[in-house]
Amino acid sequence: MTRFALTLEFDGTPFFGLQRQKDGPSVQQSVEDAIHATTGETATLHSAGRTDAGVHALAMRSHVDIAKDIAPFRLMEALNAHLRPDPVAVTACAIVPEDWHARFSCAGRRYLYRIANRRAPLTLEKDRLWQVPQELDAGAMHRAAQALVGLHDFTTFRSVHCQSDSPVKTLDRLDVERCGGEVRIHAAARSFLHHQVRSMVGCLALVGMGRWPEERLAAALEARDRAELGLNAPPHGLYFVEATYPEQETTP
Amino acid sequence: MTRFALTLEFDGTPFFGLQRQKDGPSVQQSVEDAIHATTGETATLHSAGRTDAGVHALAMRSHVDIAKDIAPFRLMEALNAHLRPDPVAVTACAIVPEDWHARFSCAGRRYLYRIANRRAPLTLEKDRLWQVPQELDAGAMHRAAQALVGLHDFTTFRSVHCQSDSPVKTLDRLDVERCGGEVRIHAAARSFLHHQVRSMVGCLALVGMGRWPEERLAAALEARDRAELGLNAPPHGLYFVEATYPEQETTP
Repeated sequence: MTRFALTLEFDGTPFFGLQRQKDGPSVQQSVEDAIHATTGETATLHSAGRTDAGVHALAMRSHVDIAKDIAPFRLMEALNAHLRPDPVAVTACAIVPEDWHARFSCAGRRYLYRIANRRAPLTLEKDRLWQVPQELDAGAMHRAAQALVGLHDFTTFRSVHCQSDSPVKTLDRLDVERCGGEVRIHAAARSFLHHQVRSMVGCLALVGMGRWPEERLAAALEARDRAELGLNAPPHGLYFVEATYPEQETTP
Repeated sequence: MTRFALTLEFDGTPFFGLQRQKDGPSVQQSVEDAIHATTGETATLHSAGRTDAGVHALAMRSHVDIAKDIAPFRLMEALNAHLRPDPVAVTACAIVPEDWHARFSCAGRRYLYRIANRRAPLTLEKDRLWQVPQELDAGAMHRAAQALVGLHDFTTFRSVHCQSDSPVKTLDRLDVERCGGEVRIHAAARSFLHHQVRSMVGCLALVGMGRWPEERLAAALEARDRAELGLNAPPHGLYFVEATYPEQETTP
């Protein structure tokens, strides 16, 4: 068996999420079907993150074990041919050591959340950003966000369906910037709780609208109580941007 | 009657073009239908450019005359409500003098052409860029493009359906830049011939692929012969970016 690391880009709109689901289409199923069509093998795709329905990926990292003798470039081309017309593409493919694991070897994950801060409906970027018509104060959002950076119990920002052993995580970065009519939130950590980014973004948006004072974000964190959550931002503004690994030589 | 200037953003994918067509949906028809639903009036939309089927707009400028007494903000909100679910949005609306004409007063037009220079199929930006799998030399494309800047007879780069009186136009700018995996072409002129941007981009792509030497672009221009055209780039990578007018105070 040879282990291949795959970099995946996908539009999350038509999927029930990255992980295989009983009741609907998933990115995992699309890729596993394409592997079967290419190699005749029933392989399991392992990924750095488990994105929800509607969440997108610019560069998800995954791996798969394949018995067939095939070069990485040929595998990538064949998978992309079989993936059509599903909106999933393999943008990089490389052979990695057998002990390299897309999920367990991952040392850092980075997300981007995009808010369209405008009144007019979205056209070219429909389903690509969360639309917030009220004027957002990105400076206030950025200041408030800094209270969440560091080692904290993120129970307030955690879905009831979260399977993580502990609500304690270290958030390395939570930056808010305005780019014209768009507000972008950059989040980085070794790992995140289920719904953590969307929950943090939802509360930051309340700060940006002036409905929450800046200090309330810190208070919500300290409460360690899901009931203190103001708002869970919708999935379609969220992008999995990057997964990093300790050994750069395994990066395709 | 009051004249309103409208700024329109649209996804050209489902339309047969900006202008009203007998046989299919157009941006003009969508907007005129929304005006009728808002005011009960049958108005005609005039626009700075006449984009083809599949071509997008970030900020098309248009105008319309309306008898009903309505504030620009309310008109914009009502049009956006009635335009749903068509991928057209009014992003700005202002009252302009009666002699202001979106097409005839326009002193400059700017287009952007986006090329996805990669092998993997597009997912999040499907129908938003022209995909060229061969590695493009953006530097060579930019150098070749400079031969087209200035006052020239652009017959080679003109559609047989072009209704312009003369093939002689002044091209103010044709810049090619690489942005990661994307090659962007910026074109600016007082006005363009039908298919001019797509025809110039198609030939530039041939230069970028190494199939045309850089000098051939100048030779094709000098030939003043449509038969010398190498390639017409597809519409879905083209964006109408901006229309400029002499009097800035009329800009909504």
